Amino acid sequence: MSEENLLVEGRNAVLEAIRAGKTIDRLYVQDGLKDGPVNTIIREAKKAGVFVRFETKDRMNQLSESKNHQGVIVQIAAYRYYEVEDMLKEAEEKGEAPFLILLDGIEDPHNLGAIIRTANQAGAHGVIIPKNRAVGLTATVAKTSAGALNYTKVAKVTNIGMTIDELKEKGMWFVCADMGGTTMYDLNLTGSMGLVVGAEGNGVSRLVREKCDMIATIPMKGSIDSLNASVAAGVLAYEIVRQRLKK
Amino acid sequence: MSEENLLVEGRNAVLEAIRAGKTIDRLYVQDGLKDGPVNTIIREAKKAGVFVRFETKDRMNQLSESKNHQGVIVQIAAYRYYEVEDMLKEAEEKGEAPFLILLDGIEDPHNLGAIIRTANQAGAHGVIIPKNRAVGLTATVAKTSAGALNYTKVAKVTNIGMTIDELKEKGMWFVCADMGGTTMYDLNLTGSMGLVVGAEGNGVSRLVREKCDMIATIPMKGSIDSLNASVAAGVLAYEIVRQRLKK
Repeated sequence: MSEENLLVEGRNAVLEAIRAGKTIDRLYVQDGLKDGPVNTIIREAKKAGVFVRFETKDRMNQLSESKNHQGVIVQIAAYRYYEVEDMLKEAEEKGEAPFLILLDGIEDPHNLGAIIRTANQAGAHGVIIPKNRAVGLTATVAKTSAGALNYTKVAKVTNIGMTIDELKEKGMWFVCADMGGTTMYDLNLTGSMGLVVGAEGNGVSRLVREKCDMIATIPMKGSIDSLNASVAAGVLAYEIVRQRLKK
Repeated sequence: MSEENLLVEGRNAVLEAIRAGKTIDRLYVQDGLKDGPVNTIIREAKKAGVFVRFETKDRMNQLSESKNHQGVIVQIAAYRYYEVEDMLKEAEEKGEAPFLILLDGIEDPHNLGAIIRTANQAGAHGVIIPKNRAVGLTATVAKTSAGALNYTKVAKVTNIGMTIDELKEKGMWFVCADMGGTTMYDLNLTGSMGLVVGAEGNGVSRLVREKCDMIATIPMKGSIDSLNASVAAGVLAYEIVRQRLKK
């Protein structure tokens, strides 16, 4: 497993990477480019479920390592994504009730890295992220995770809601972090548990929230809206740790 | 009080600053932006008598310190540093036992911002930072605090150890976050409490650690060293919140 995130640049190379089925985090396309080859790349990327992002020429030049990007850059995950099944197997092998952290759209790589680090320390068996509209395993994520990415499994799924449905059938319970629920200290968070944390700013999406068995609210005395997403994930993950230790 | 003029950048942070009634010199808005959040900011700014100025994207990028301005920047009279005395007074006025967070050398502005945000939500009466070898109240800190810097007092002291000594004389207790101490759930963290959090990587310095009454350890099951500093601060601050609520 390499620690570096790989950038592939230039039209032919980018198209090859997409068609080869590489784990691509994101395709960057220069604003305003609309010629045939670029359109083909965008179409293939969308077909492959790759998140496409348009950037100014300046930003593209900044991103580029080769300085010869021809208007397209893809970021390839060097890290291996696991399957959710691998996480359940790990829990079983350790003789522990599964404890998973599901992220409904975290966009900031520092937050994702910090959450993977927290997952590692709190004894979670894995972190599940969605394929679209979310950051993947980039070099910044790896760095912010302080090495945790080498130990804690991360899976990328097409649809968080569907994954919740599948795991519920296997007997897991889901608690979602949101306002207006039950104070987290008053919930029973022991047992096979999936902790769902929403995106920065928007929180957990309505569809995902409705699938959760419990809404856990962190008591907030402040004058602002919310906590930082990685702090909120940490506070909730450790409430689960506390309840598991007490049990 | 800092002598610099402070820039606050990004939509949430700018709106919070305007709504909190900060002394704002000027609002810069990127030419051509007309979406809902930007219109709200312009309307609120005009209502507050703030001078609005439209600038090109290039000029905005030049002005920006965080390089993530989202099209809006306000220039405000520098954030005021408070005195530790002000925090104790606030606690007294609220009829609460003082709860302060002391940072022994946080260097990352994102961590400082996230910790100020946590302090606000956990009901702490202030955050104390050292003058040297630590980040101060920059635009990035203000943005990451998501508005909390408008409500939560921050004091800058010459020497964290001396400040602890002075506060101990006033009856405060100090708990320091570190490995090899007592599991945090087994400590009594109610009462007048100062929570001391160490720097990224190095933790709490030996001199400061020795002044603390208790060493609180977050249970860690992972294969790596520690949690992100702002996550650790959040987990510990919320253990204090939990114990205060239970009491």
